[in-house]
Amino acid sequence: MELSARQQRIVEIVKEKGPITGEKIADILELTRATLRPDLTVLTMSGYLDARPRVGYYYTGKTGSQLFQERLLKMKVKDFQSIPVVIPENSSVYDAICSMFLEDVGTLFVVNENGKLIGIVSRKDLLRASMGKQDLEALPIGIIMTRMPNVTTCTAEDSMLEIANKLISKQIDGLPVVKKDDNGEYDVIGRITKTNITKAFVYIGAEE
Amino acid sequence: MELSARQQRIVEIVKEKGPITGEKIADILELTRATLRPDLTVLTMSGYLDARPRVGYYYTGKTGSQLFQERLLKMKVKDFQSIPVVIPENSSVYDAICSMFLEDVGTLFVVNENGKLIGIVSRKDLLRASMGKQDLEALPIGIIMTRMPNVTTCTAEDSMLEIANKLISKQIDGLPVVKKDDNGEYDVIGRITKTNITKAFVYIGAEE
Repeated sequence: MELSARQQRIVEIVKEKGPITGEKIADILELTRATLRPDLTVLTMSGYLDARPRVGYYYTGKTGSQLFQERLLKMKVKDFQSIPVVIPENSSVYDAICSMFLEDVGTLFVVNENGKLIGIVSRKDLLRASMGKQDLEALPIGIIMTRMPNVTTCTAEDSMLEIANKLISKQIDGLPVVKKDDNGEYDVIGRITKTNITKAFVYIGAEE
Repeated sequence: MELSARQQRIVEIVKEKGPITGEKIADILELTRATLRPDLTVLTMSGYLDARPRVGYYYTGKTGSQLFQERLLKMKVKDFQSIPVVIPENSSVYDAICSMFLEDVGTLFVVNENGKLIGIVSRKDLLRASMGKQDLEALPIGIIMTRMPNVTTCTAEDSMLEIANKLISKQIDGLPVVKKDDNGEYDVIGRITKTNITKAFVYIGAEE
């Protein structure tokens, strides 16, 4: 975000004289409080300034670069996740491949009869299985899936940066966004893949 | 990047009095030119200040956030690309699947007898082919690959941001990094996938 000349001037005033009320800033700039309000809002929301009731505005001392980093860490899974595609545990490998093409996803989550996460299966797992000479319609998905507790999961509140790190370090394509229920089992509420990370990357580039 | 107190002071001096020589800045701060040199180097390299011979230092007027954006655009394909995996055009689908597992990649490039790019094949293409009832060892890769000129390509000098955009808008997993030869044909010199974008994302987060 580029500050306007007036916003830069406000930052300088607050840096020098803060904490300072909006009224006093308006006096110094010979402007009305109402004229200044949008600028003060922008500066507070973007993190350059902070405000305390009955005290006034003060300078946070953060550089643009630091504020950018903080924004990066504020990019959460919940802001970028996709809808999860789940299949029941009694599916065959053939069923799973069909779901994958039908839903056009690279990762499927396998759930038990209560809808709780029990495994995950990737395009790579299915390709490997289809190379065997087995009958795919008779091969249960449970045989080839990665089974809990070996499934890497994440929560809606995790940062995208954390997830990108996990995907790289564990060499996986995607993971389920889960919510633990009272019995310690997982409901699948979302899906995060390298596609979502790529979208987040495009988003930061387009943001300003 | 967070500026030190002294670096911030230098930026302020240059902002106010620039263009100004290093010597004069040193005078104002009551320091030697040699003591200041590292700070001036950091500030110039990071883009806060610029210097012209016989004129001195001046303030670029760029905020940390803008500088960050510029750095983002400077992240090039050549800095993040992976080694390409190519297969000859007379490969069977079975050969291709074996290469994909052996090399652990999600995208293969198909080349003619001169090593020039003629097509691309993804894990999804291979999975689709393996679902048919055909004999994979007898099925030529040319039948299922995406053929030139329908292959999206990029060059080593493209920015990662541009590529991330292409991967999302065209819904593809990866693309070849190519170099055009004198006959207008393409040599494949690298591979960029969503994995490389994810690594670039982790890189920006870890940078500062």
